[in-house]
Amino acid sequence: MSRPDQPRPLSGFPEWLPGERLAEQLVVDHLRRTFELAGFSPLETRAVEPLSQLLRKGEIDKEVYVVRRLHDDAHEAGSPDVAEPDEDALALHYDLTVPFARYVLENAGRLEFPFRRYQIQKVWRGERPQEGRYREFRQADIDIVGRDTLPFHHDVDIAQVMAEALSGLPVPPITLQLNNRRLIQGFYEGLGIEDPAVVAAVIRAVDKIDKVGAAGVRQILVEQEGIPGPVAEACLSLAPIRTADSSFVEQVRALGVKSDLLETGLAELAEVMEGARAVASDRVQVVADLSIARGLDYYTGTVYETRMGGFESLGSICSGGRYDALAGDGRTTYPGVGISLGVTRALGPLFARGFVRLNRPTPTYVLIAVPDEDQRSACRTTALELRARGIPVEVSPSAAKYGKQIRYAERRGIPNVWFPAGATESGEAEVRDIRTGTQVSAAAWRPDADDLAVHFAG
Amino acid sequence: MSRPDQPRPLSGFPEWLPGERLAEQLVVDHLRRTFELAGFSPLETRAVEPLSQLLRKGEIDKEVYVVRRLHDDAHEAGSPDVAEPDEDALALHYDLTVPFARYVLENAGRLEFPFRRYQIQKVWRGERPQEGRYREFRQADIDIVGRDTLPFHHDVDIAQVMAEALSGLPVPPITLQLNNRRLIQGFYEGLGIEDPAVVAAVIRAVDKIDKVGAAGVRQILVEQEGIPGPVAEACLSLAPIRTADSSFVEQVRALGVKSDLLETGLAELAEVMEGARAVASDRVQVVADLSIARGLDYYTGTVYETRMGGFESLGSICSGGRYDALAGDGRTTYPGVGISLGVTRALGPLFARGFVRLNRPTPTYVLIAVPDEDQRSACRTTALELRARGIPVEVSPSAAKYGKQIRYAERRGIPNVWFPAGATESGEAEVRDIRTGTQVSAAAWRPDADDLAVHFAG
Repeated sequence: MSRPDQPRPLSGFPEWLPGERLAEQLVVDHLRRTFELAGFSPLETRAVEPLSQLLRKGEIDKEVYVVRRLHDDAHEAGSPDVAEPDEDALALHYDLTVPFARYVLENAGRLEFPFRRYQIQKVWRGERPQEGRYREFRQADIDIVGRDTLPFHHDVDIAQVMAEALSGLPVPPITLQLNNRRLIQGFYEGLGIEDPAVVAAVIRAVDKIDKVGAAGVRQILVEQEGIPGPVAEACLSLAPIRTADSSFVEQVRALGVKSDLLETGLAELAEVMEGARAVASDRVQVVADLSIARGLDYYTGTVYETRMGGFESLGSICSGGRYDALAGDGRTTYPGVGISLGVTRALGPLFARGFVRLNRPTPTYVLIAVPDEDQRSACRTTALELRARGIPVEVSPSAAKYGKQIRYAERRGIPNVWFPAGATESGEAEVRDIRTGTQVSAAAWRPDADDLAVHFAG
Repeated sequence: MSRPDQPRPLSGFPEWLPGERLAEQLVVDHLRRTFELAGFSPLETRAVEPLSQLLRKGEIDKEVYVVRRLHDDAHEAGSPDVAEPDEDALALHYDLTVPFARYVLENAGRLEFPFRRYQIQKVWRGERPQEGRYREFRQADIDIVGRDTLPFHHDVDIAQVMAEALSGLPVPPITLQLNNRRLIQGFYEGLGIEDPAVVAAVIRAVDKIDKVGAAGVRQILVEQEGIPGPVAEACLSLAPIRTADSSFVEQVRALGVKSDLLETGLAELAEVMEGARAVASDRVQVVADLSIARGLDYYTGTVYETRMGGFESLGSICSGGRYDALAGDGRTTYPGVGISLGVTRALGPLFARGFVRLNRPTPTYVLIAVPDEDQRSACRTTALELRARGIPVEVSPSAAKYGKQIRYAERRGIPNVWFPAGATESGEAEVRDIRTGTQVSAAAWRPDADDLAVHFAG
């Protein structure tokens, strides 16, 4: 075993170096700015929820981290403390949707609906760690929730805002994939498949097309679900449809299947496509992809997924959709639509491959050289003046020879060194850009507006 | 028992309304900007640490939250899973100092020293909740850590940067209280008290002066510690010294006690005072307060505490000091100096009393009214154009009568409503400031630069 003083990383709990954390902050800043420009309010919920609430929501029981006071553990071993039963039933949230739904129910009387919020927080899942899969990771969610009703047009807002947000990130090109549960279900209805259990089984079977091939899916549908051969083949005809515009509508209509629900789904997907395409770019492409099946079990209308170019093995890094009942308390139902970006899931693999670069890895723009310790107080005054001008600055930690102080700045990635008056050839204070060697009078020196703040490079 | 669908707050786990969260974000933004201007790098550590590491650090064992995978609980009940012993020994961090020390040891080879970092994160403690005491709360820490040595002058940096940070917060006036462990210990040395255990006992006894009075402290020192009466009285003579400048030096010297350590402590405290006073204001006052005793047990030199005017019962909302060994691995020692601001501890009571006000409680600056649903797509285009100009905007959720849409903006606190072309008397698009009723042509309208972003008011 390792010594108690020898710390080691915990698998699945990534931590960044300071420069990586700067990059992550820039990503979060950009997301936050985009969401706020679109009128989403910030929200943060506590890290814990009652375990019983988390377990009610799905098949996630093996992934939940239970939280207990050590004090209570001691009680359990001896005399059970029945005075604090709730203490025994807390767990870390595994997503931001369940806590948000609970928050909406708890604060419904103090919120205005439709309520649009964003939430950027860590979540925890006890999954087996691998690339892009962590036990602690940050998500960035936007959701719009209504009371009793939520007009469809909000589905368009969500696609548009997340497409805008993704456009501004220093990540490989993203494909936003759109589908609609009503379209799929309506198509199967038109084929005569109406039993919800069979619809779900067909969706699951068609989702296996990459693994077992069209013939394999057809076999499952016929042999396990008792679907007639020609109908089974028709079920397969939606999956290949993938269009960058609304032409999917004609392609579906050409299949000759008809139902009201199918028409609703087609109209909704066409409208979301139109809205998302209005903000598409070479950084974010939008496709209607009728093979998207994951999530159709949870969602009731629009479904969003994404792929990151060159990182397709990560799966969808940003997913969501429409819920007819995001939350409900028996009296009131709160429908919602939202999407969640896996910030850590996307950045972790990008950091590992050196994909994200900054103009410098530290906030500091200027290091003030210290001629000798007696002048440190004067150097500090200069630092205060520069900070008041919005220039990130620190005073050299030692009054070593200037060469050594310059090398310290180089190692830290600080681009400029300020030499105080009296310690230069001119006798005046001077500033050197140590990347270029250019040295100018401090009185004439101005920070480069494009370089002053830390930003993404290249 | 309450119904499973009826959520309720968890005592000690505060959650803010959207407007409060906006305010908290502004506070964190200001802290972050101040810290980065002073060259502190951002850092974030995982939420969990090995339980054994947390318990080694102090008497916090009853306050720690242990974290376990639910899956592992199941294993424990049946067949213990010895393959993952670490899973059984994780706990949520209760501060940001222990994780930072561990991070420094783990990443020492990839960091430049002295390393200055800030860290703004949630921490968890199983304390009994009360005003300003929470089980989940946000802290904002700055620390500077050296390898083997860390020059004293960094103690001045820390005081200066936190004083600057506190100056810009929308909180009641803050008093930054400074003391120095070497000063106290050197004074007792000069009195002939050199046994560290007795020094610690004297510090604890003098700290009780508010409760038991000078006579009571004298009695403890004489009867429990066997200190001669006149020496015991001399021990009490430091505590009343409290000065807003360096005159504490003369007051201490006038007591006629001498030791080298005392001189070092006096010089250090005078220098920290001088640095902090350079950034003092009517919002942040600085005092040398020789009665500050809490923390002297942990710290080895400078000690920082603070009081918030009108909220003295909260105790110190921002504390820290110098450690001779923040971290160490047996080969190398990492001395450090730092300070930690209790963001939630300060904001919680201020929110509860309505102390923190914003110009508006939502990011949105403009609501675009929708004349009818057919025009929603055009309204959306207008919204994209305004966002590209940096104006936070949302499209009205319904095409109800304009009066209803305006009332929606009012309830949300959105200050302006945009009426599209064709739906106004002039036929042109117009913008109304619904607080003043002023309505102007949209073409001529410009956002008020002082009002566009959410900011603190009053």
